[in-house]
Amino acid sequence: MSRKLVKKRGKKVGAAPGTLVHVGDKSEAAAHIRVIAYDQEHFQDQRLAEPAACPPFKTGPRISWINVDGVHEVAKVEALGGCLGLHPLVMEDILNTDQRPKIEDYDDYLYIVIKMLRYEEQRHEIRAEQVSLVLGRHFVLSFQEHPGDVFEGVRERLRHGRRIRFLGTDYLAYALLDAVVDNYFSLLENIGDQVEKLEEELIANPSPDTLARIHHFKREMLLLRKSVWPLREVLGSLTREEHALISAETRLFLRDVHDHCIHVLDTVETLRDLLAGMLDIYLSSVSNRMNEIMKVLTIMATIFIPLTFIAGVYGMNFTHMPELNWRYGYAGAWLVMIAVAFGLLLFFRRKKWL
Amino acid sequence: MSRKLVKKRGKKVGAAPGTLVHVGDKSEAAAHIRVIAYDQEHFQDQRLAEPAACPPFKTGPRISWINVDGVHEVAKVEALGGCLGLHPLVMEDILNTDQRPKIEDYDDYLYIVIKMLRYEEQRHEIRAEQVSLVLGRHFVLSFQEHPGDVFEGVRERLRHGRRIRFLGTDYLAYALLDAVVDNYFSLLENIGDQVEKLEEELIANPSPDTLARIHHFKREMLLLRKSVWPLREVLGSLTREEHALISAETRLFLRDVHDHCIHVLDTVETLRDLLAGMLDIYLSSVSNRMNEIMKVLTIMATIFIPLTFIAGVYGMNFTHMPELNWRYGYAGAWLVMIAVAFGLLLFFRRKKWL
Amino acid sequence: MSRKLVKKRGKKVGAAPGTLVHVGDKSEAAAHIRVIAYDQEHFQDQRLAEPAACPPFKTGPRISWINVDGVHEVAKVEALGGCLGLHPLVMEDILNTDQRPKIEDYDDYLYIVIKMLRYEEQRHEIRAEQVSLVLGRHFVLSFQEHPGDVFEGVRERLRHGRRIRFLGTDYLAYALLDAVVDNYFSLLENIGDQVEKLEEELIANPSPDTLARIHHFKREMLLLRKSVWPLREVLGSLTREEHALISAETRLFLRDVHDHCIHVLDTVETLRDLLAGMLDIYLSSVSNRMNEIMKVLTIMATIFIPLTFIAGVYGMNFTHMPELNWRYGYAGAWLVMIAVAFGLLLFFRRKKWL
Amino acid sequence: MSRKLVKKRGKKVGAAPGTLVHVGDKSEAAAHIRVIAYDQEHFQDQRLAEPAACPPFKTGPRISWINVDGVHEVAKVEALGGCLGLHPLVMEDILNTDQRPKIEDYDDYLYIVIKMLRYEEQRHEIRAEQVSLVLGRHFVLSFQEHPGDVFEGVRERLRHGRRIRFLGTDYLAYALLDAVVDNYFSLLENIGDQVEKLEEELIANPSPDTLARIHHFKREMLLLRKSVWPLREVLGSLTREEHALISAETRLFLRDVHDHCIHVLDTVETLRDLLAGMLDIYLSSVSNRMNEIMKVLTIMATIFIPLTFIAGVYGMNFTHMPELNWRYGYAGAWLVMIAVAFGLLLFFRRKKWL
Amino acid sequence: MSRKLVKKRGKKVGAAPGTLVHVGDKSEAAAHIRVIAYDQEHFQDQRLAEPAACPPFKTGPRISWINVDGVHEVAKVEALGGCLGLHPLVMEDILNTDQRPKIEDYDDYLYIVIKMLRYEEQRHEIRAEQVSLVLGRHFVLSFQEHPGDVFEGVRERLRHGRRIRFLGTDYLAYALLDAVVDNYFSLLENIGDQVEKLEEELIANPSPDTLARIHHFKREMLLLRKSVWPLREVLGSLTREEHALISAETRLFLRDVHDHCIHVLDTVETLRDLLAGMLDIYLSSVSNRMNEIMKVLTIMATIFIPLTFIAGVYGMNFTHMPELNWRYGYAGAWLVMIAVAFGLLLFFRRKKWL
Repeated sequence: MSRKLVKKRGKKVGAAPGTLVHVGDKSEAAAHIRVIAYDQEHFQDQRLAEPAACPPFKTGPRISWINVDGVHEVAKVEALGGCLGLHPLVMEDILNTDQRPKIEDYDDYLYIVIKMLRYEEQRHEIRAEQVSLVLGRHFVLSFQEHPGDVFEGVRERLRHGRRIRFLGTDYLAYALLDAVVDNYFSLLENIGDQVEKLEEELIANPSPDTLARIHHFKREMLLLRKSVWPLREVLGSLTREEHALISAETRLFLRDVHDHCIHVLDTVETLRDLLAGMLDIYLSSVSNRMNEIMKVLTIMATIFIPLTFIAGVYGMNFTHMPELNWRYGYAGAWLVMIAVAFGLLLFFRRKKWL
Repeated sequence: MSRKLVKKRGKKVGAAPGTLVHVGDKSEAAAHIRVIAYDQEHFQDQRLAEPAACPPFKTGPRISWINVDGVHEVAKVEALGGCLGLHPLVMEDILNTDQRPKIEDYDDYLYIVIKMLRYEEQRHEIRAEQVSLVLGRHFVLSFQEHPGDVFEGVRERLRHGRRIRFLGTDYLAYALLDAVVDNYFSLLENIGDQVEKLEEELIANPSPDTLARIHHFKREMLLLRKSVWPLREVLGSLTREEHALISAETRLFLRDVHDHCIHVLDTVETLRDLLAGMLDIYLSSVSNRMNEIMKVLTIMATIFIPLTFIAGVYGMNFTHMPELNWRYGYAGAWLVMIAVAFGLLLFFRRKKWL
Repeated sequence: MSRKLVKKRGKKVGAAPGTLVHVGDKSEAAAHIRVIAYDQEHFQDQRLAEPAACPPFKTGPRISWINVDGVHEVAKVEALGGCLGLHPLVMEDILNTDQRPKIEDYDDYLYIVIKMLRYEEQRHEIRAEQVSLVLGRHFVLSFQEHPGDVFEGVRERLRHGRRIRFLGTDYLAYALLDAVVDNYFSLLENIGDQVEKLEEELIANPSPDTLARIHHFKREMLLLRKSVWPLREVLGSLTREEHALISAETRLFLRDVHDHCIHVLDTVETLRDLLAGMLDIYLSSVSNRMNEIMKVLTIMATIFIPLTFIAGVYGMNFTHMPELNWRYGYAGAWLVMIAVAFGLLLFFRRKKWL
Repeated sequence: MSRKLVKKRGKKVGAAPGTLVHVGDKSEAAAHIRVIAYDQEHFQDQRLAEPAACPPFKTGPRISWINVDGVHEVAKVEALGGCLGLHPLVMEDILNTDQRPKIEDYDDYLYIVIKMLRYEEQRHEIRAEQVSLVLGRHFVLSFQEHPGDVFEGVRERLRHGRRIRFLGTDYLAYALLDAVVDNYFSLLENIGDQVEKLEEELIANPSPDTLARIHHFKREMLLLRKSVWPLREVLGSLTREEHALISAETRLFLRDVHDHCIHVLDTVETLRDLLAGMLDIYLSSVSNRMNEIMKVLTIMATIFIPLTFIAGVYGMNFTHMPELNWRYGYAGAWLVMIAVAFGLLLFFRRKKWL
Repeated sequence: MSRKLVKKRGKKVGAAPGTLVHVGDKSEAAAHIRVIAYDQEHFQDQRLAEPAACPPFKTGPRISWINVDGVHEVAKVEALGGCLGLHPLVMEDILNTDQRPKIEDYDDYLYIVIKMLRYEEQRHEIRAEQVSLVLGRHFVLSFQEHPGDVFEGVRERLRHGRRIRFLGTDYLAYALLDAVVDNYFSLLENIGDQVEKLEEELIANPSPDTLARIHHFKREMLLLRKSVWPLREVLGSLTREEHALISAETRLFLRDVHDHCIHVLDTVETLRDLLAGMLDIYLSSVSNRMNEIMKVLTIMATIFIPLTFIAGVYGMNFTHMPELNWRYGYAGAWLVMIAVAFGLLLFFRRKKWL
C-alpha cells in the first residue's frame, strides 16, 4: 500500500515477459489461500495449504472462490496459476501490483484488475491495494496482498445461502466488484465530510495549513481518479460486450455497479472543482488580509508623517523664528496638527478605507 | 433534500444487491399513494391506502398514474413494486435517492431517474429531490420523497380532458419530464437575475462578501450541472433509441424536451464562464484598490520624508551652524522645503500617479 | 432583443406542450406579413392582411416567401401555421424566441431556428433576434419579431431575376441562411477592430476601465458563441444528411455557408484566447506599476531614514556631546550624510532598481 | 498579407453567392500567369498573357501546372476559371483570400485551400498568404496573391526531369503541399529558437518587455494553429478517402505530409504550453523581485525607526531630564542604539530575511 | 540527442521526397551493423561490414535481427534499405530522427518509429533517441544513432535460447517495444522520486530555485508526453488491427505493452497535475512570506511613528511650553509613550497579527 507516485520495479525492468517477479509493497504475513466452495445445498470454507490441491476446484460441479492473501509469495501464485491454466502474462500481472484497472478476455476466463481503497484516518490518506480477479466457468480467483478486505459481506451472504448461492461465478464476481465500488462511497463520504469542514474553516479562519490541506486533498483526488477512471471502462466493457462467461441476468447487475462507478467519478470531479474554487478563495483571502494590514500602516503613517514634520519645523534652532516667541505659538501648533489629523481622517473615510 | 456533497449510505455499504434500504433525507410526512386513472372519457383521482390494491392498474384498460410521496416507507414501496413486477434492482434504486439521472430498459417497462430541483430563496440554495419514473404499458409510476411537486399543471390538464387524455403512457411520462425540465428554466431565471445583480455590485462596490457569493454560485452551478448533464443523455436515449414503449409521435415531443435540456446546460455553462470572469474582475479590483492605497502612502511619505529631514538638520545643536544666525534663515528653510514638495508633486504628476 | 442571461417565460412554465404563448421581447410595431411569390418569369411582392389567405402559396406552382415581422401576435402566427399545416410544437417554438439554433425534419417541411445578430454601436453590445425558417416544397416561411433585417440583398436579387429565380425553395432558404451568416462576419470585423484598439490601449495606458472592457468583450464572445456553435450543427446536418427537400446542387452551396460558420467560430475562439491573454497582460501590468511605486517609496525612504536619524542624533540635548563643539562638526555631519546617501544610491544601482 | 484579426469584406456582405469580389490584401504587382507543361520527355515553362489561351492545358496529353500570381485581378481569374470549367463557388473562394484551409471534391477536380506562411524577421510576425490549388486530371492550378513562393524546389525538380516528371497531377499537387508544410518547419525552427532565447532571458533578466514578447508569441501561436489545424483535416481527407484523382502510390506520399502536419501541430502545442509556463515564471519572478524590494525597505525602516525615536527622546527640551547631564549619557545613548540595531539584525537573520 | 525544441533540418527543406538526408544529432562513432540470426537450434551474432551482404537475411529460413548504430552514415542505410527492398519514404524517415512515433503498413513489412528515452542524471534532463523498426517476414531491422541501448536483455534471452527463439519476427519486435516501454517506467521512477523530494522541499523551504525546478519538470513532462502519446496509438494499432505479420499469440503480448504505455501516460498526467498544484503552493507561499514581512514592518512602524511624533513635539523650541517645566514632565512623556505602545500592541493582538 505504498504511497510512492511511481512504484519501484527493481530487477523487473528488462526481464522477459512472463517473468514472475513481485512488484509493490510486501505484506509481512505469510501467504494464505482460502477456498469457499458452494452450490445450492452445500457450503464449505477451508484453507488450502498446497496450491497443487486445486484441480477439483477447476472443473466443478461446485463453484469455488479461491482467495489468495499475499501475492508476494511468487511460488504459490505460480503453482496455483499453473494448475488452473492461467496464461503467463496473467500471472505476471497478478504479481505486478502496480497495474491500471483493466479487463482481459482469455476466452476460458476473464482477468480483471481493480483497486481496493482504504482510507487511513491518521494521515488522511487513501491507500490502494490491487485486487486481481480471474473469473472462470467454475471458479473465481481473487488475489490480494494484505490480510483484511471488503468482502466480508459477500462471505456472509454465501454462508447464509442467499440468492448468491443459486447463481454462477459471474454473479460472484459481480458481488466482489460491487463490494469494492460500494467501499468507494464510504471513502468519499469520509473525504466529503472533511472537505466540507475545510470549507468552513477556510471562511472562518484561513491559515497556511488550510492551503496545505487543500493541496493534500487535491492530490488524493488525483490518485483516486487514477484508480476509478479506468475501472469505469472495465465495468462498461462487462456491461456492453458479449463475454461468454457473463449471463444476461448478471449483466443487469453489472450495469448497476457501472452506474455507481460513474457516480463515484462524478463526485470526485465535483470535489476537485470545489477544491479548485477553495484554492481561489484562500488566495484571495490572503490578499484581503494583506490589504487590511496595508490600510492600517497607511493610515497611521499618513497621519503622523505630516504631524512629525510640523513638530520638526518648530524644533529647528534658527535664531529668528517669530512663531516660537508668540504667546499662543505652542497651542497654535497643536491646533494645526489636530486639524491636519482630522482632515486626513476625513479623507480616509471618504475613500471608504475606514 | 440534503446539501451534503456525498450522502450517507449508513448500513447500506456491503449489503447484498437488491437489499431495500432507504438512502437520503427523510420526509416527516407519512407515505401517500395517489392514483389518477383515466381514458378519453373517464377521469378518476383517488388515494390508494393499500399498495396491494394495485393489480387493476397494471393491466388497464385505463391508464394509471400512480404517484408515491415518501419513499422512505420501504415496506410500501416494496409491496407496490412487487405487485407491479419491478426488478429488485429497480426497487433498490427507487429507495436510494442519491442516484445520477439515468434510464434503464427492462423490456416490460422503462425505469427513469431524474432530479426535481427547487430553489430555496432564503439560503439561495438549490435543493434536489430524486424522482423515479417507471413507464409501463398501462401505468406510469412516480416516486418522490417530499410532498409538493412541479406536476400540478399535468394533473390539471388530465382533469380537463385535453390532448393528454387521448394519448398513451409514453405521453404522460413525457409530460412529467417536460414539467421537471421546464422548472429548471424558472430556477435559472432566478439565479440568472441574481448573478446579474452580483455583477453590478461587483463593479460598483466589491467586498469580500461578493467573493463569497461568487464562490457560492459557482458551487450551485457545479451541483446543477451534476443533475442536468446526465439527464441530457437520458433524454437523448429516449429520442434516439427504439424503446418499444415510446411511440414515434411522442418521440417528437421528447426531442423538444431534449432541446430544452441542452438549452439549460448551455445556460449553466454560460453562467459558469461568467462567474469565472467575475472572479477575475474581483481579484483584480482588489489589487487595484491595493494600488490606490499604496499610491497615497507613497506620495505622503515621499513628500514628507525629505522635508522632515531638512527640519531635522536645522534642529541639530552644533555650535557652528552659520545658517541658524542668518536673517532669513528660517524663511529660506521654508522656501527650500516648499520647493522640494512641489518638485516631488510634479514628479508624481509626470508619472501619472496623481 | 433582451440582454437578460435567461429570458422570462412568465406563465409558460407548466403549460401543456403546444400551448401558444409568446416568450421574449415584444416589438411595438404591429405584425406584418409580406409575401414574395415568384417563378422564372414572374415576381410579385405583396402584403398579406389576412393569414387565412395563404392557401395558394402552399401548393404552388410559384414559390412563395412568406415573411412575418412581429411573432408576438400569437393569433396571426397560429392562423398562418394552421393554414400551412405546421405541427403544434413548431408553432410553439416559433413563438418562444429564446431557443437554441436547431433543425427539425417534419418530412413535409424542415423547421430551422437561427439567430440574427445586430451590433449596437452605442452600448458595444450584440443583440440577438430569433429567426424561424420553415422550408416547404413550395414555400419558405420566415418569422422575426422586429422590423428590419439582413435579407434586403436577397429581396433585391429576387426582384432582378437572377439565378435565385430559377431554383427551388431550398436555394431560397440557403440564401437567407447565407445572409445571416455573412452578417456575422461584418459584426466580427467590428468587434475585431475594437479588440485590436483595446490591445493597443492596454499596452499604452492600461486603466481599470480597460479591464471592464476586456470583461465586456469576453462576455459578448460567450453570448456569440452560444448563438453560433449550435448553428454549426444545423448547417452540418443540412450539408450531410439526406433531407428530401434539399437538392444536391443546393447542398454544395450549403457546404459553403457551413465553412463560413466554422470560420466564424474559429474567429470567436481566437478572440476569446486573445482576450484571455489580454487579461493576463493587464493583471501583470498592474503589478508592474505597483512595483514601480514601491521602488520609488523604498528608495526615498531608505535614503532619508538614516539621514534623518543622523540629524536626530545631533539634535539631542546631552550636555556632553563633544562633536557639537568641533570647529567643522556641522560640515562633518553633512559630509557623513552625503556619503551615506551616495552609498545607498550606489547600492540601488547595483541592484538595478534605478 | 494583412495582420487584421478579421479581414474586411467590404461590399461582399449581402452579395449573391458566386459574386466575384476580391477579399484581402492586394499585391501591387500586375497579375502574372505562368504555365509549366511537361511529360516524361518534354518540359516547357512559359508566361500566359491571355487566360483564354488555356484550353490546350485542359485536356492534355501533357501535364500543366498553371500558377497565377495576383488573384486581385478578378477578370483574369474569372476568364481562366471559366475556360477550365470551375464552379462559381470555387472562383468565389479563390478570390476570397480569408478562407480556412479546406478541401472540396467537385468530381472532375479537387479544390484545396492552404496557407503559405512567411516569417517576417523584423516584426517577428508570421504572415499568411492563401494558396488555392485546383487538381484536375491534366492540370494543376495554383493561385497566390504576392510574387515569391516556396515552390522553387518543385520547379527545379520538374526542370531536371526527376521522378516527378513520370507521375501524374496528383503527385505534382502533393509536391506543392509538401513544400508548403516543409516551410512550416523552417518557420517553427525560427520561432523555437527565439522562444528558447526568451526563456533564457526570462531567467537571467525578466523585464516588462519579456512579458510583451511572451504575449506576442502566444498570439503568433494562436494564428499559426488557426492555419495548421484545419490543414490536418484536409490532408487526412486526402490520405483516407477515395478521391478518384489520387492514386494509391501518391496516397503513401500524402500520408507522409499528413504526419509532418501533425508534427507541426504537436510542436505548436508544445510551444503554447511552454509559453504558458513562461508566463507563470515571469509573474512569479515579478513578485519575487517585489519581495526583495520590500525586504530592503523593511530592514532599513525597521532598524532606523526605533533609533530615530531614541534620538528624538533625547532631543526633547524638558527641564528635568537627568540623563542629559550624565557624564556618559551621550555614549550610553549610542550604546543603546547600537544594541537595538544589532538585536534587530539578529532577528532578521533568524527569520532568514538577510 | 539534441534538446532543441525544433530540430534543424538544414538543406532538407524544399528537397524532393525520398531525398536521403540525415536530420538530427550525429554520433561521433562510425556506423556499426550487427546481425543476430537464430532459429530454435542456432544462434549467431556477427558484425556486418558490408550492407550488400544482407540478402541471406532477407529470405530466411533463420530469423535475423539487423541492428544499425549510426544512421548518419547515409550510404550504409541506403545500401541496406535498397537490398531489403524498403520504400524510399521509409529510408527518408529512418534518416530523419525528428519524427513522431508512428506505424506504417507497407504490406511486406511494418515500419515503426519509437523514441528510446534516457535520463541524464547530471542535468536532470530526458534525452530522446529515435529508434526505427522494420518488421519483415524473416527479419527485424532496428536503427539507432548512438551506441548503447535498452535491448541488452533481449539479446541475453536470444543467446540463452528461451521462448523468444521459438517464435517469429513479430515476437522479436514485441520484445524490443517492450524493452523500450519498460525503460520508461524506470525513467518515471527516477523523476517521480525527484518530484516528491521537490514537494517536500517546497513545504519546508521554498526558494526561487524551487520554482525553476518545478518549471523544469513541467517542461520535461511536456517533452515526455510528446514521445509517449503517439506511441499509444502505434501500440493500439498493433493490438487492434489485422496486420498480416502479427500473430494472434503475439497480439496478446502487445496488448500488455499497450497497457503499460497507457499506464506511463497516466503517470505523466498525474505528475503534470501534481506539478501544477505545486506551482500554486509555491506562489501562495511566496505571498505568505510577503505578508509576514509586511506585518513586521507595519507593527514596527505603526508603534514607533506616534512615539517619535510625541518626542518631536517636546523637542519644539516654543518659548511658552508649560509641560517642559513640569517636575514630572519627562517621566509623564515616557508614560504616555509607553501607554501608546501598549495600546497598539493590544490592537495588533486583537487583530491576530501577533
